[in-house]
Amino acid sequence: MRSLLLVVQYDGTDYHGFQRQPELPTVQGELENALSALLNEDVVVTGAGRTDAGVHAVGQIVTFETERPIPVDRIVRALNSMLPDAVTALEAREVSADFHPRYDARGKVYGYRILNREEPSPFIGRYAWHLPEPLDVSLMREAATSLLGTHDFVAYSSSGGSEGDTVRTLQRLDMDRHGDLIELRLEASGFLYMMARRIVGTLVDVGAGRIGVADVKALLESRDRRRAGTIAPPNGLSLITVIY
Amino acid sequence: MRSLLLVVQYDGTDYHGFQRQPELPTVQGELENALSALLNEDVVVTGAGRTDAGVHAVGQIVTFETERPIPVDRIVRALNSMLPDAVTALEAREVSADFHPRYDARGKVYGYRILNREEPSPFIGRYAWHLPEPLDVSLMREAATSLLGTHDFVAYSSSGGSEGDTVRTLQRLDMDRHGDLIELRLEASGFLYMMARRIVGTLVDVGAGRIGVADVKALLESRDRRRAGTIAPPNGLSLITVIY
Repeated sequence: MRSLLLVVQYDGTDYHGFQRQPELPTVQGELENALSALLNEDVVVTGAGRTDAGVHAVGQIVTFETERPIPVDRIVRALNSMLPDAVTALEAREVSADFHPRYDARGKVYGYRILNREEPSPFIGRYAWHLPEPLDVSLMREAATSLLGTHDFVAYSSSGGSEGDTVRTLQRLDMDRHGDLIELRLEASGFLYMMARRIVGTLVDVGAGRIGVADVKALLESRDRRRAGTIAPPNGLSLITVIY
Repeated sequence: MRSLLLVVQYDGTDYHGFQRQPELPTVQGELENALSALLNEDVVVTGAGRTDAGVHAVGQIVTFETERPIPVDRIVRALNSMLPDAVTALEAREVSADFHPRYDARGKVYGYRILNREEPSPFIGRYAWHLPEPLDVSLMREAATSLLGTHDFVAYSSSGGSEGDTVRTLQRLDMDRHGDLIELRLEASGFLYMMARRIVGTLVDVGAGRIGVADVKALLESRDRRRAGTIAPPNGLSLITVIY
């Protein structure tokens, strides 16, 4: 039995998230259908991150096992010919049988895009949260510093994920404005359910002046998710890469 | 009666073109539905260019007439709140009653994007023709020069448009490669039905080595559309702007 790893991109707009669900279009479902057809055996894929409905990925990592001797340098092209336009394999390689894309991940990087101007955009709008109100990015950046480091992020999560330890380390939370576009980048040892979108939503509340810089830290320290603020919509979020 | 002009953007992927068709989603249909609801009267819009199914626009021009006294600086926001995400108004202004967005146009600029690499992209792929075979852009550029100027472009058109005079002036046909992306820009006094996509498709045949540079000129001079080559797919094409 061989273990293979794929680097995968997808436009999550029309999917009910990564994880397979009966009767609903999901990214895992597309990958498993295409691989099963290609390899002529039932293939199950395991993803590094279970991205939610509407969330995109530019560097999702998935693994699967196969009995087939298909050469690794042929998989990407063959697979892409069977996948729908919204899902693309970029790279394939052989990994050891004990490699697990989620448990072995040391961290993940997510990107979040905000289109900050009066008019929406039919193009960027698929991949960005449209906010017409002017945002003060320097205030958002100041607020973000209190989230850096190792904390219990339970107040920045939603119930519904696999619970357990809610301590994570946020190594990086950068943001830059390029004209109308604000791009955030979050790197953490792991993300709780809805954590990236809750952090972005709360920072936007700061940038719009609805809450103060100090409220971001106060919410973190409250460890009370009922106090949590705005949840940023999924379409602005992309899984950029997984760190091993 | 007032005449109003709108600058409109749209992602044409899910539309059966600009022009209204019964029972099918079209850009004109979306604009007329939103304007009619907003103004509470039947609104008919006239577009500068009837873009085909799947073609996008970043600067389509449309006009409509209304009896309503809605201030021009309120229309864009109100209209965007009623339009679907794939269609956006950028600007509105009052024009004289005799202005016609198509008949008064002195020219149009179209852009065409090619993603020229092995792997497709779920993001750029919506807005670009994916061609894995390496294209020689300098050959394409050389071939393009024979199309510049005033010619009978009938061989670079398809039947099905409103026929008549098939002479047009192509003022500009530029192309640049930015990494994996090739961007073409075509400016002409007007475009025959399928002209932009036939020109791009034929230049790609040159870039891929399927035909020679001289064949582009020979096809033009043949005035025979049955000899025409590849038609580039609609998703790479965008109406950039209309020149008045």
